[in-house]
Amino acid sequence: MHCMHDSNALIEAVPNFSEGRRADVINRLAQALQAPGVSLLHQTSDAEHNRTVLTVAGAPEGVLEGLFQAARVAAQEINLFTQRGAHPRLGAADVVPLIPLEGVTLEECAELARQLGRRIGDELGLPVYLYEAAATRPERRNLADVRRGEFERLVEEIDQPERQPDYGPARVGPAGAVIIGARPFLIAYNVFLESADVRIAQAIARAIRASSGGLPAVKALGLLVDGQAQVSINLVDFKQTPLPVVMETVTALAAQHGVGVAHSELIGLMPLEAVAQVAAHYLKLPDFTPMRIVEHALQMTRGAGC
Amino acid sequence: MHCMHDSNALIEAVPNFSEGRRADVINRLAQALQAPGVSLLHQTSDAEHNRTVLTVAGAPEGVLEGLFQAARVAAQEINLFTQRGAHPRLGAADVVPLIPLEGVTLEECAELARQLGRRIGDELGLPVYLYEAAATRPERRNLADVRRGEFERLVEEIDQPERQPDYGPARVGPAGAVIIGARPFLIAYNVFLESADVRIAQAIARAIRASSGGLPAVKALGLLVDGQAQVSINLVDFKQTPLPVVMETVTALAAQHGVGVAHSELIGLMPLEAVAQVAAHYLKLPDFTPMRIVEHALQMTRGAGC
Repeated sequence: MHCMHDSNALIEAVPNFSEGRRADVINRLAQALQAPGVSLLHQTSDAEHNRTVLTVAGAPEGVLEGLFQAARVAAQEINLFTQRGAHPRLGAADVVPLIPLEGVTLEECAELARQLGRRIGDELGLPVYLYEAAATRPERRNLADVRRGEFERLVEEIDQPERQPDYGPARVGPAGAVIIGARPFLIAYNVFLESADVRIAQAIARAIRASSGGLPAVKALGLLVDGQAQVSINLVDFKQTPLPVVMETVTALAAQHGVGVAHSELIGLMPLEAVAQVAAHYLKLPDFTPMRIVEHALQMTRGAGC
Repeated sequence: MHCMHDSNALIEAVPNFSEGRRADVINRLAQALQAPGVSLLHQTSDAEHNRTVLTVAGAPEGVLEGLFQAARVAAQEINLFTQRGAHPRLGAADVVPLIPLEGVTLEECAELARQLGRRIGDELGLPVYLYEAAATRPERRNLADVRRGEFERLVEEIDQPERQPDYGPARVGPAGAVIIGARPFLIAYNVFLESADVRIAQAIARAIRASSGGLPAVKALGLLVDGQAQVSINLVDFKQTPLPVVMETVTALAAQHGVGVAHSELIGLMPLEAVAQVAAHYLKLPDFTPMRIVEHALQMTRGAGC
């Protein structure tokens, strides 16, 4: 289906850096990521969050090399003792998820995460925590648990046994720690409310998040971004809870608080199948799949010629 | 972007045949269409309409050859003197639109339509009318005008000057006439109402169709299909009137008649950009484009390697 052999694995990585304001640093991070064979698919920076999320894809070796180089740039340029932003963070290269795209399993991505973690720990001298499918302890599977208390608390607690890093020294410098893991494709989707009251966003986040009995596969936070209440959502399995269900639920809960949905924001990308789900739901086309999209159907049927 | 040289033109054709019941005939039509290099992208048959719509794509020569062979099968197998169905029709191979996909203009598709028309007229001895971008007279641009009165009226009127075919004899046999043309990509979208009252579907169709001052680029008919009122829609330019606008308008008008929308039906395929529009609208993502879809972004950035 693509112009490569099936034996060539393809992974995505969506590194999150704790810098969303200085364009020169952001450019250097994006440049560093683009090792040979690595495509930069998307880039988004948020000054309020003070965070940049870059989406890259390519062969595992290239992606790992780019991530290492970008982590080095981040560690040189970002000082967590002075960095401030709306988004929680533990370090300069804050979170580095690896995602299987083609010809590679989640467990293989977890092994790649360990390789990258070992190299960053050894060569950059940074504490590294493994999370999700790469986690070495059950209590480190969940990103929010690893990041609890943020950088400031880690500085105080890193010598405690439960905060012992998986790689690198148990010592926190200005670059903080790096959280590396492997996970399935995640849709990062923020809904802005027509309100400046963060408590409404927090109440909605609490109501929809799986951990408090809400929607399966949904993680959510209520934030105040540019003076606007925002429900920040990570949908970790769109097949379990389709995006339209998330959107309709947030809209209905917001209405209960007497506020509307202003607009939304997608961080990074989403898979074609998730987009097809949205069309199927709102156009009331129960049979709609990606094969009903002309470009996709053509690519599938012409694959043999590649 | 695809594994072919840009100089290789790619067209789509969506031939409509007046047979939606006999599986053996439908299979022979689908087989005949698949000349070398032609992909069958989609196939849909409707017994009530007594109509089959096949979507193929490929290089122009292959597509024209497949269409000619399928028109021959249709002419042999379908007898308009006895064929009955909910959908208006002028012939066995009723309508054959050619659509530019890549590396080919609409005017080049119109020239291909004329080539195919000449061959069908000469070799199959059928009257052929050219429509839309291939039309030879302004009053033949619109498909509904060419098909007015259907097969039965054409039998009586074909010797009149205004019904003189563009190719083939001015004489109607059991296979009727073939309407061939070129047009931009069209989305064929039917909305089923929770009602058996065809007059509601007709009123909504009248209200939304461009020809009666409704939505730009929208053609619509009210039909009764399987006892259910259906608004049958052709959206001829989804950039002018996005699908969500069509859906919201039909839903609102149906509500005025006190009925809901049961479900919809897509005939054939739709372009990725139209699907992205739907996601942008309903997820309130104003910046959403196909480049935010992981498969599409990857294909675009990896194109150079093909």
